[in-house]
Amino acid sequence: MTDPKIYKPRAVTGFPEWLPEVRRIEQQWMDHIRKVFESYGFCSIETPSIEELDVLRAKGEVDKEIYVLERLHKDDNDKSDARLALHFDQTVPLARYVAQHFNELDFPFKRYQMQRVWRGERPQAGRFREFYQCDIDVIGVDNVPLHFDSELAAIMVDILRGLDIGPFQMQISNRKILIGLCEGLGISNIAPVTRAIDKIEKIGAEGTRQLLSEAHLPAQIIETLISFAQIKTENESFVEKVLALGVSSPTLAEGIAELASVMARLTHIERGYVVADLSIVRGLDYYTGTVYETKLLENRDFGSICSGGRYDDLAGSYINKHLPGVGISIGLSRLFDYMRINGKLGDLTRKSPTDILVCLPSDENRNAAAEVAKILRDRGLNVELYHSGQKIKKQMEYAVRKGIPFVWFPPFDVGQPHEVKNMKTGTQSTADPKTWMIGKNS
Amino acid sequence: MTDPKIYKPRAVTGFPEWLPEVRRIEQQWMDHIRKVFESYGFCSIETPSIEELDVLRAKGEVDKEIYVLERLHKDDNDKSDARLALHFDQTVPLARYVAQHFNELDFPFKRYQMQRVWRGERPQAGRFREFYQCDIDVIGVDNVPLHFDSELAAIMVDILRGLDIGPFQMQISNRKILIGLCEGLGISNIAPVTRAIDKIEKIGAEGTRQLLSEAHLPAQIIETLISFAQIKTENESFVEKVLALGVSSPTLAEGIAELASVMARLTHIERGYVVADLSIVRGLDYYTGTVYETKLLENRDFGSICSGGRYDDLAGSYINKHLPGVGISIGLSRLFDYMRINGKLGDLTRKSPTDILVCLPSDENRNAAAEVAKILRDRGLNVELYHSGQKIKKQMEYAVRKGIPFVWFPPFDVGQPHEVKNMKTGTQSTADPKTWMIGKNS
Repeated sequence: MTDPKIYKPRAVTGFPEWLPEVRRIEQQWMDHIRKVFESYGFCSIETPSIEELDVLRAKGEVDKEIYVLERLHKDDNDKSDARLALHFDQTVPLARYVAQHFNELDFPFKRYQMQRVWRGERPQAGRFREFYQCDIDVIGVDNVPLHFDSELAAIMVDILRGLDIGPFQMQISNRKILIGLCEGLGISNIAPVTRAIDKIEKIGAEGTRQLLSEAHLPAQIIETLISFAQIKTENESFVEKVLALGVSSPTLAEGIAELASVMARLTHIERGYVVADLSIVRGLDYYTGTVYETKLLENRDFGSICSGGRYDDLAGSYINKHLPGVGISIGLSRLFDYMRINGKLGDLTRKSPTDILVCLPSDENRNAAAEVAKILRDRGLNVELYHSGQKIKKQMEYAVRKGIPFVWFPPFDVGQPHEVKNMKTGTQSTADPKTWMIGKNS
Repeated sequence: MTDPKIYKPRAVTGFPEWLPEVRRIEQQWMDHIRKVFESYGFCSIETPSIEELDVLRAKGEVDKEIYVLERLHKDDNDKSDARLALHFDQTVPLARYVAQHFNELDFPFKRYQMQRVWRGERPQAGRFREFYQCDIDVIGVDNVPLHFDSELAAIMVDILRGLDIGPFQMQISNRKILIGLCEGLGISNIAPVTRAIDKIEKIGAEGTRQLLSEAHLPAQIIETLISFAQIKTENESFVEKVLALGVSSPTLAEGIAELASVMARLTHIERGYVVADLSIVRGLDYYTGTVYETKLLENRDFGSICSGGRYDDLAGSYINKHLPGVGISIGLSRLFDYMRINGKLGDLTRKSPTDILVCLPSDENRNAAAEVAKILRDRGLNVELYHSGQKIKKQMEYAVRKGIPFVWFPPFDVGQPHEVKNMKTGTQSTADPKTWMIGKNS
């Protein structure tokens, strides 16, 4: 009996969408993140989803898959368009934005950005091709005070603590420390050392020792590197431990001083949320100083949920200025989906933002009921007026189905009292729409 | 002296982006729109930006230009992907969403959606290729109460009144009225009549008369149609005027009754914001009952800023269910940009959300100043701590440049009072960070 013209839609892998009750929580997450960003005075910007392909590739070939665009009905003679593509992160667009609007912006430029990004991956389970990313960066002209390296960490801890994601820990290091250590140890080929140390949390000291020995390093140096990679302290005490390794170099000293300063300014954060962890190196060559990673303590294997660092030059591909910066990013959709799959999103019974359903005793009473709804709404509540004068039982069932917490009964007759029912407790009591509040007499 | 490797970015026509001070207002607009939608109990959904091309075309060829996607590094053997494209509106995705999740949704399904949409237009001034649209719809199974036709109008008036866009008027009609009138007049070819009447606001009665005579209609019928198209009333009094035309048909009677009912439920809205205007027909054949358009009274030629109507079947291309609905949409970016160009966005001096800049008397006082910033921030204020112990004059200049309304001076010495300066009035007074509020002693 199916209509042959029907095209039955299916979910396209990698492009998630949520039911209203899940979307409600996603909105709460995004509101919270935005609120914290703004509480530190960071401004919002948004950039187009689309950039010229040449802009995206100005730094060289991109290793991420890019979606390029074609107009469906483009005629062959139409050469008016540059080649366009969807952005794959918010860093390249930020760089382009800062370069393009350089003279109109104030520095240090403190911005956050919460948009969708796209990666043209091969479809596979658990890999998103469209997702939200929440980025915060500070860009300076010629320099960015170290102040911001600690401020960004504090902001992210504020955010994650408010998201109810369970215990987590932000690990901070400084690229100069490992680079300086290698200098001091006389190691010229740093790449394999970086890779091995980066893995110590996953593969353990023995695995890292194995990787380092494959790089043909002397046993004593390997042990120094292993000791180094295990340094993890809740305050500046990492400094002594590094000094105890007996290695020195100017870069090492600089990195230690920077990280110590960042940690010293984070002492107001409750213990355990932030650690200096010298095994953190971040994969990207991009970073030149402070680096951040953040793990869920109940599942470290999930990888970093919030990462970033300090970079030397944001926009050198687009403008002849020296614009260093520091930034951190949350891969929001990935973290949110993980919490969703693990049943940790909180209350999913509410399928709408409605606080109160105002019943319609009958179609004749519509104006009186509408007036009640308006009074409650003007007082800041989210109010649905039931759409037809059906039996009250039907109206109550609607409230139950949608998880609406309160149902309001306007009187059938003038002079009678209003009543309101708390759908959770079952309590029903008289109420005045002009004064009633959630949690008070309810 | 330009580095030859620099790729100088330029604005791509049709993809607008805003400076922080403009983006701040755009956020206020979107917050306001969302708040009103939710105050009536509508839930938010978002759909992926990307749909299968077959989904977008399930109703037949689309007259809008679609952007299709290609993976940049796709190898020719990879046939795993269906052909994907960016959505060009939010109605097709809503239809697909409702069909796909039909069993998990509650009806009437009341949702709003505020996302970017894309149209692969040829680049030209004033035409956006990426823009925000704000849609609100109610979808029913087999029927949607007329209640919602008036509720949506009330919602949109609430929204537009809050946006400070100057005087506007929503015009409401019902497609059945014109169709029924043509039936009653014995006109079988309705299309040219619709087109002519649709234009009366732009070209006047004489122009419409001209168009109708080109459709070879008798003079008397033309005059009836002209009289009809000029009917515009602030309440249900349009009914008498239509009846006075002396034409009747069952469809006409139905349309009149529906529109009269919608208007009767809008009497709580202040006069002038909503009118029954029988010249409104909407271009789309899609609509079957109520239709809405909204004009800026200071510039009617700008066209409708907020339009929609009632449709008979949302998702027939994707599911074997009868799902009628009613919806209205604001083309947010177009309206916002118009207000921007006309200098009507309000205060553009604030380049960040910061309420207060806390000065750093010196780098030694950093922890004390940070503590003040935290106290103010915990009380819900947006607070920047100045990033380095530069001269106070420099810090003040920063506040002026960014349009920060208040500057806080923590004491240099313990026991001294804090002071706060209102940057607008120039008043400076002592203050306690634990009790200070904007607008009170400030």
